[in-house]
Amino acid sequence: MIDTEYIIGIDIGGTNTVVGVVDSNGACLFKSSFPTSQQKDLDQFIGKLVSTIGELFRKLPGRSSLRGIGVAAPAARHREGTVRNPANLPWGTVNLVEMLKRHFTLPIALTNDSNAAALGEFYFGAGRGKRNFVAMTLGTGLGAGIVMNRELLYGSNDLAGELGHVILEERGRECGCRRRGCAETYVSASGLRRTVFELLAQKNDESVMRDSSFNELSAKTICDLALGGDTIASEAFEITGRYLGRLLANTVAAYDPEAIILSGGLMGAGDLLLRPTRKCFADDLLSLYKGGIEIISSGLANNDAAIIGASCLIGKVAEVGQEEVPI
Amino acid sequence: MIDTEYIIGIDIGGTNTVVGVVDSNGACLFKSSFPTSQQKDLDQFIGKLVSTIGELFRKLPGRSSLRGIGVAAPAARHREGTVRNPANLPWGTVNLVEMLKRHFTLPIALTNDSNAAALGEFYFGAGRGKRNFVAMTLGTGLGAGIVMNRELLYGSNDLAGELGHVILEERGRECGCRRRGCAETYVSASGLRRTVFELLAQKNDESVMRDSSFNELSAKTICDLALGGDTIASEAFEITGRYLGRLLANTVAAYDPEAIILSGGLMGAGDLLLRPTRKCFADDLLSLYKGGIEIISSGLANNDAAIIGASCLIGKVAEVGQEEVPI
Repeated sequence: MIDTEYIIGIDIGGTNTVVGVVDSNGACLFKSSFPTSQQKDLDQFIGKLVSTIGELFRKLPGRSSLRGIGVAAPAARHREGTVRNPANLPWGTVNLVEMLKRHFTLPIALTNDSNAAALGEFYFGAGRGKRNFVAMTLGTGLGAGIVMNRELLYGSNDLAGELGHVILEERGRECGCRRRGCAETYVSASGLRRTVFELLAQKNDESVMRDSSFNELSAKTICDLALGGDTIASEAFEITGRYLGRLLANTVAAYDPEAIILSGGLMGAGDLLLRPTRKCFADDLLSLYKGGIEIISSGLANNDAAIIGASCLIGKVAEVGQEEVPI
Repeated sequence: MIDTEYIIGIDIGGTNTVVGVVDSNGACLFKSSFPTSQQKDLDQFIGKLVSTIGELFRKLPGRSSLRGIGVAAPAARHREGTVRNPANLPWGTVNLVEMLKRHFTLPIALTNDSNAAALGEFYFGAGRGKRNFVAMTLGTGLGAGIVMNRELLYGSNDLAGELGHVILEERGRECGCRRRGCAETYVSASGLRRTVFELLAQKNDESVMRDSSFNELSAKTICDLALGGDTIASEAFEITGRYLGRLLANTVAAYDPEAIILSGGLMGAGDLLLRPTRKCFADDLLSLYKGGIEIISSGLANNDAAIIGASCLIGKVAEVGQEEVPI
């Protein structure tokens, strides 16, 4: 009887870190999470990560072995194995791969969360069988991973596909990156909330959102209200879809993909967002591309995309990565 | 004594078609051109092209042979060998490679003019030794060829890098593609002229351009006037540079290149265009990329970039093309 091999996939987020055990079919069998922000420093974070991996491993049946560890993190540089000054984590620049290698004699690789999600789609989601696609995650921010010619597009510093920071409005909204008008200030959960507040200021429509503070209003609430007939909430989705449609049309002009795969919390709004997005995309798309490009939803359970994709860095990456992974 | 091999490089433009003989060092030894638009139909065009190639071949010294023919054309699809509904040529969709193969038993390959220029830069120009760059041509329109990981980025339909049709202004200027606000309506020779006319309408500054018609005003004239102190002409370059700087910042967010190589007629303006471009680029660039990206001028004699690049499709393309060329 041979061993069954599993891969650890890790998704490090600003709030929580999720560790999963992924099998060779891309199924995430067990998951465990802990609050990233409550670890007092990087050493404590690594300690917690190592113990969580150990606990998960002990849940596996006998004759199981680990093939490696794949990590998805914000601001990650694949070729270096580093995370560089992530916006939501007080770590500075750290080589996460080297730090984990002190604890495991396994192949370990790292990529950024958006690239991991794209890898997950490529192997096990809506990107299966596709040669060229863009996987875009609409959450608190906007991230993208680009697969071209069956390879992740990394660029010269592993920073290709920063589509959340494409400037859509010259003197637009302030972004966390200190510039103005970035796509993610319009097309994201927080962008939607900003649009609602702009509309509350501009219009006189009644809305229960006039009793919400900026900080307490969530994209989920706005979605529920739009479905219930709130005109401000509905218009906010129209406007968000218009920006997203234009962003996607420009994205097609850049990469000429077969499909754009959308995922992330904001996609919970479904047609509220997709209908205006598709309309504006069709209006804004250069006619050369017309008819050839699908806008589709993620084929992966939402919160698992980055974990599953990170696990694909081990073993599968040789087919996909442009460079050898730092293992 | 062995034969010396040459490659024919052809640059088909809306106005003129230029045929060149290129040696293995990327030097264009002889050139001949004829007016594309004066050929009464496609057959006559092909006839003229074939006879021009013959005349050039007879100029070569004895013991010369041709290795193949590379063609750069607008609206060209590399993998198919076709030109599809070029805006400035009344041909519809034609398979130029097949048509030429009736006359020559040589390897023949085709790519679009912007990709050809990028190939030229990669092998013999400012892109030598670079792994990832964007080559942008600023002429009557705006074209771009993208080299990523030492390969041309073609996308799923050979339509990646249509950066002239990235929408920069939501309800902006009408474009020849029937949409509005495309980059090339601002950042091109004709975009510069439109900006001048907008300024003439908005401002009261004296300018000899108030005696010019729209059709007679050229980018060269605007450039000369700006250098001579014309304030409208100077401001038009400032505005053009601002749009170009933002386009380049967004281009970096998409591809993470090492460099952006600029060429084309509008680059004749030199610092008039480059100074505001570099300033706005620095302002608009996401800080992650700062310090790492060069904006440089073409390393090739201006009108030869596409000819030399087209010649690189023969022989060299195996190293660069993502697919076998249709030879």
